[in-house]
Amino acid sequence: MSVNTFGRLLRFTTWGESHGPALGAVVDGCPPGLALDEAAIQPFLDARRPGQSKFTTQRQEPDAVKILSGVFEGKTTGTPISLMIENVDQRSKDYSEVAKAYRPGHADYAYDAKYGFRDYRGGGRSSARETAARVAAGAVARLVIPEVTVRAWVSEIGGDAIVMDNFDFAEIGNNPFFCPDAEAAKRWEVLVDEARLAGSSVGAVVECEATGVPAGWGAPLYGKLDADLAAAMMGINAVKGVEIGDGFAAARLTGEGNADPMRPSSTPGEDGPDFLANHAGGIAGGISTGQPVRVRVAFKPTSSILTPQQTINRDGEATEMFTKGRHDPCVGIRGVPVVEAMMALVLADHKLLHRGQCG
Amino acid sequence: MSVNTFGRLLRFTTWGESHGPALGAVVDGCPPGLALDEAAIQPFLDARRPGQSKFTTQRQEPDAVKILSGVFEGKTTGTPISLMIENVDQRSKDYSEVAKAYRPGHADYAYDAKYGFRDYRGGGRSSARETAARVAAGAVARLVIPEVTVRAWVSEIGGDAIVMDNFDFAEIGNNPFFCPDAEAAKRWEVLVDEARLAGSSVGAVVECEATGVPAGWGAPLYGKLDADLAAAMMGINAVKGVEIGDGFAAARLTGEGNADPMRPSSTPGEDGPDFLANHAGGIAGGISTGQPVRVRVAFKPTSSILTPQQTINRDGEATEMFTKGRHDPCVGIRGVPVVEAMMALVLADHKLLHRGQCG
Amino acid sequence: MSVNTFGRLLRFTTWGESHGPALGAVVDGCPPGLALDEAAIQPFLDARRPGQSKFTTQRQEPDAVKILSGVFEGKTTGTPISLMIENVDQRSKDYSEVAKAYRPGHADYAYDAKYGFRDYRGGGRSSARETAARVAAGAVARLVIPEVTVRAWVSEIGGDAIVMDNFDFAEIGNNPFFCPDAEAAKRWEVLVDEARLAGSSVGAVVECEATGVPAGWGAPLYGKLDADLAAAMMGINAVKGVEIGDGFAAARLTGEGNADPMRPSSTPGEDGPDFLANHAGGIAGGISTGQPVRVRVAFKPTSSILTPQQTINRDGEATEMFTKGRHDPCVGIRGVPVVEAMMALVLADHKLLHRGQCG
Amino acid sequence: MSVNTFGRLLRFTTWGESHGPALGAVVDGCPPGLALDEAAIQPFLDARRPGQSKFTTQRQEPDAVKILSGVFEGKTTGTPISLMIENVDQRSKDYSEVAKAYRPGHADYAYDAKYGFRDYRGGGRSSARETAARVAAGAVARLVIPEVTVRAWVSEIGGDAIVMDNFDFAEIGNNPFFCPDAEAAKRWEVLVDEARLAGSSVGAVVECEATGVPAGWGAPLYGKLDADLAAAMMGINAVKGVEIGDGFAAARLTGEGNADPMRPSSTPGEDGPDFLANHAGGIAGGISTGQPVRVRVAFKPTSSILTPQQTINRDGEATEMFTKGRHDPCVGIRGVPVVEAMMALVLADHKLLHRGQCG
Repeated sequence: MSVNTFGRLLRFTTWGESHGPALGAVVDGCPPGLALDEAAIQPFLDARRPGQSKFTTQRQEPDAVKILSGVFEGKTTGTPISLMIENVDQRSKDYSEVAKAYRPGHADYAYDAKYGFRDYRGGGRSSARETAARVAAGAVARLVIPEVTVRAWVSEIGGDAIVMDNFDFAEIGNNPFFCPDAEAAKRWEVLVDEARLAGSSVGAVVECEATGVPAGWGAPLYGKLDADLAAAMMGINAVKGVEIGDGFAAARLTGEGNADPMRPSSTPGEDGPDFLANHAGGIAGGISTGQPVRVRVAFKPTSSILTPQQTINRDGEATEMFTKGRHDPCVGIRGVPVVEAMMALVLADHKLLHRGQCG
Repeated sequence: MSVNTFGRLLRFTTWGESHGPALGAVVDGCPPGLALDEAAIQPFLDARRPGQSKFTTQRQEPDAVKILSGVFEGKTTGTPISLMIENVDQRSKDYSEVAKAYRPGHADYAYDAKYGFRDYRGGGRSSARETAARVAAGAVARLVIPEVTVRAWVSEIGGDAIVMDNFDFAEIGNNPFFCPDAEAAKRWEVLVDEARLAGSSVGAVVECEATGVPAGWGAPLYGKLDADLAAAMMGINAVKGVEIGDGFAAARLTGEGNADPMRPSSTPGEDGPDFLANHAGGIAGGISTGQPVRVRVAFKPTSSILTPQQTINRDGEATEMFTKGRHDPCVGIRGVPVVEAMMALVLADHKLLHRGQCG
Repeated sequence: MSVNTFGRLLRFTTWGESHGPALGAVVDGCPPGLALDEAAIQPFLDARRPGQSKFTTQRQEPDAVKILSGVFEGKTTGTPISLMIENVDQRSKDYSEVAKAYRPGHADYAYDAKYGFRDYRGGGRSSARETAARVAAGAVARLVIPEVTVRAWVSEIGGDAIVMDNFDFAEIGNNPFFCPDAEAAKRWEVLVDEARLAGSSVGAVVECEATGVPAGWGAPLYGKLDADLAAAMMGINAVKGVEIGDGFAAARLTGEGNADPMRPSSTPGEDGPDFLANHAGGIAGGISTGQPVRVRVAFKPTSSILTPQQTINRDGEATEMFTKGRHDPCVGIRGVPVVEAMMALVLADHKLLHRGQCG
Repeated sequence: MSVNTFGRLLRFTTWGESHGPALGAVVDGCPPGLALDEAAIQPFLDARRPGQSKFTTQRQEPDAVKILSGVFEGKTTGTPISLMIENVDQRSKDYSEVAKAYRPGHADYAYDAKYGFRDYRGGGRSSARETAARVAAGAVARLVIPEVTVRAWVSEIGGDAIVMDNFDFAEIGNNPFFCPDAEAAKRWEVLVDEARLAGSSVGAVVECEATGVPAGWGAPLYGKLDADLAAAMMGINAVKGVEIGDGFAAARLTGEGNADPMRPSSTPGEDGPDFLANHAGGIAGGISTGQPVRVRVAFKPTSSILTPQQTINRDGEATEMFTKGRHDPCVGIRGVPVVEAMMALVLADHKLLHRGQCG
């Protein structure tokens, strides 16, 4: 089976392959009357766009989005919004090797096992290129939740983490790593470049925070906000782990150490309480608490490396292969806008769900 | 909004509160012709049942399941299977305090923020007691995937992890912690008892492995097997983190260190390859590879502790409270049968999905 | 596949067989804070209850509903509402004949073809007895739409239609046919009794009207209000046709004859227009217009008749059978509360959907 | 709310407005390995294409479909199939009148009531032009069910019905009405032309038959084959009624008259029985019986007529309007390929559903 739609009330469906003519997303369920044009989407695609530094793949794609439906006189109409991004740089290449053998660590073998057949050019549908469509859809989702600010950053590359004392969100535009710690960014420049030159790759951790989420979003017990976020993040290419709030660290705390006590709000006119901590990451019982929603996402190192690896071909025979193409030495970096997009999409969906039942 | 149904083709819907007359699950989409009676479900409920040692809550519930529909002459008919578990030990108690104030770390405040109203007796719908219904549904799911063996264990309590050299799955029946390391079980007996006596609590990590899953299950891109597992696990009470395969550790590896090379099968007559490692946890591109599917789940420490904590009441005024009731000092322990159930439910669903499209 | 859940935001899942211990519905997504107890549901079940006149089956069922979850202190909590109705009069009977051969016109052959196996006692899951669960769920749905009045009646039995000049809704309580035309009710008494005594059966047409539906409900293009109503009605046992507004008669009109012109509202303070006709049945483009929503539903004659009919047995051999059991000579009569319930369920769902996106 | 996706396992999502740059469908869940190119889809679009005779709208659209994803080396890959049709003849026109006032009988008022805003050019999203996307999706669905033959025809226009003795399916290509009765086609030529010249319009009834459907498709109780067909047909623009098999006529029959007795198959090697009648239209209990599946669909007359009608404008003031644009005098005619497409889509979906659970 294929399931290419995500969401409950605000839904998006993506389509397209790495080396097809185009890819896109249809965003359905977006409320009417929101100001939307291509310029509201393009900056997010630009942030994800490849080829902007030597630390990402050299594939050159303008990733220019076109809105084909759902907008009239500059406003959403409540009907489906069709977004299309044409592929430009499908470099002509000899795919005979990848057509015949399975790249280890990639989805090649699994796709063949499932479908008996696959578009092997650049990974086809399993390529991270598809995440451009999610980023475009995420830009629409942001319009649905103007009260919320979503921002993500890389907090760790190759096991080297940022120092929270150095955290300055303004820094993330000053380096090619979305890194909020200027010191760490300098170290990563060396670290990632070494991996790149060695034909190797490194993993990364991306963190995302949404502020301004009111208490009450989430649909227990099987549409919990944290469960939906976990699915959204785990479904991103190369992701192997998701944490809400303290995540695995919470498993090493005592009840006292993990407590999030409450006080009456110190802000005049504010309804919600002041929380004295946020171990929970802004979600309790699957429902937002009014605190910042915090997620951490683990990206594995890019599977494409120059070191030859043992594998098998479509006939089940032993062979060796290494991956020659254009690749990101650290795929987690370009995961930042994707993580933000998925956070926005999940939150926007839950805003509408909450309003539907409890509005 | 409330969403109390999980799954795509094999779906289950649960209902019931901690202190209501009963709770249950309706399992829909189960194939016909499978042998099913109460005795096929009860052992899994017994494994989760409270009050079996001093390390779990002292609430006494027989958790006897009744099958109310969907089975005829001992076999499933393909129609919905209604499972009911009556609540027996809803101890009469004074709930006036918890009715008025929000227990920190619990879902009390979030539920009130969402619904403007809640059943405060024992946490109502947000109580982990509901997981009995998931365990019952999971027992049905196991019948759908006889080719698969699902088993989980506790691998870490309060930061103290098992040693893989000591791993012996047969041990998990010999201690009250589902612990496969006899040495660790002895240490945990002290550790959890100390927490219990101090009115404190500790977190835990549960691991789950499914063997026998063929290559090809999973529904990319938004019904990926790992994304569905992440949602299933993150939606369990007290869970704050989910990892597939190496999880966050993979973010600290290089591409070489994270590789899962393949060789032709060394087993005569076997189709699939031999994998030389399983960093991926049996899933690539959201599709099973034929290797064991491996998940790690972080449970926070129980939020109910005896230390008084600052909180607010329904009028927004400052107060203090501590939790007197019957509670698990380490809620992760009883998470083991729940994690197994959710693994079985997700895999069974994906077996049917795969057969639908690619069968 | 089995799909036993209906609805998008307000969803209900039913379970149970004709001769099992009980049947029920789980209503999920109901907004919190609505006053609900068994007494709010029972009158609708009583209207549908069998054995109340000689014109319906003589099976005696009290159809007493129990609420097992989702209500606290007399109000809905926003969590799933589990409703159970115990079966009482599963008369001991010899089912050997129906176990072996397929009753023509019933679902016996189709169920066996699908599932390879069936609960043959009283039709099992395919029995109209399941509609009790829909009626119970419908009573909950009515609470979600207090602004709407839903009422249905029988407009035609055995080809004999009511006369609109005689229409008096108050009459439907004065006869066993839910007939708003006292004259027609007298004729039907003879007509249905003749069918009953002859061991035959007759068809019927049920009409339903919902007033108070505001303009704007409906989710085009594939969740249109009329399409959802069509599915809801066609899914009722024995239904073979559904019309919205003028239905098939509209296909015989000209554009002029079918027009629904509008005038400014003649009611001071009213927003919507006055419509000069309602050929459309209150729905345009799949969205409610503010006019009464009108549906007509065709029920075939009960398939169980005393005349022996040719059929085959499970081994594919020719045989004859006639149906001895307790049956309704005109199944459409007891369809009235079911049609009302489905109308209420669809409208309540669309109210929530509309509020979610456009609220 | 907007819901622009139809189906359960084989799903399609459509997008696009009458006067936008393009419209399209994303077909998801299509099995892999099916031969597909534009030429397999185009003939069905050509059958629906406007401007082919004086009896349909004079808008000139080539309706050339492009496949943008999901096909590789001429075969489906199991990933989403994106289909796009560019709009060519969006004739420049003065829309100021329709922007301000609501065309009676159209969805104008309802859309504004729902969304507070609408794309008024040619009806925007509510235009029947969107059905081109359904027809394209339907062509893909046909590939999923090669064992099934789906064909539809017009059986009645303006109250003038075909005579079954004259029925010859080969005739439908010989006239512009998809009419299988050559005599009726001649009468309709006069009838429809009179309506066209008078600026009036007429209704129609379309019938559709699917042969080759095996027994066992359908997902009771809320995904019944007939309920899904009813939703699919009622959701087509201008449809006001749906019948399965004898439909409303069955409500006028006795149980004896409506019986569908069975005999052992007279065809050697055939499993299923011979049915002696098909009043049920090939569906019992929501499951196919192996007989031809038969549906009748009522199309109202086109609402756009030249006779001025009373209406209101966006300010709620009284006005009059008539519709000047290019319109079909009998919109039911071009409904034929749309009805066929929806039949194919529903059946293909249910084939996959059945295989998932019972395969």
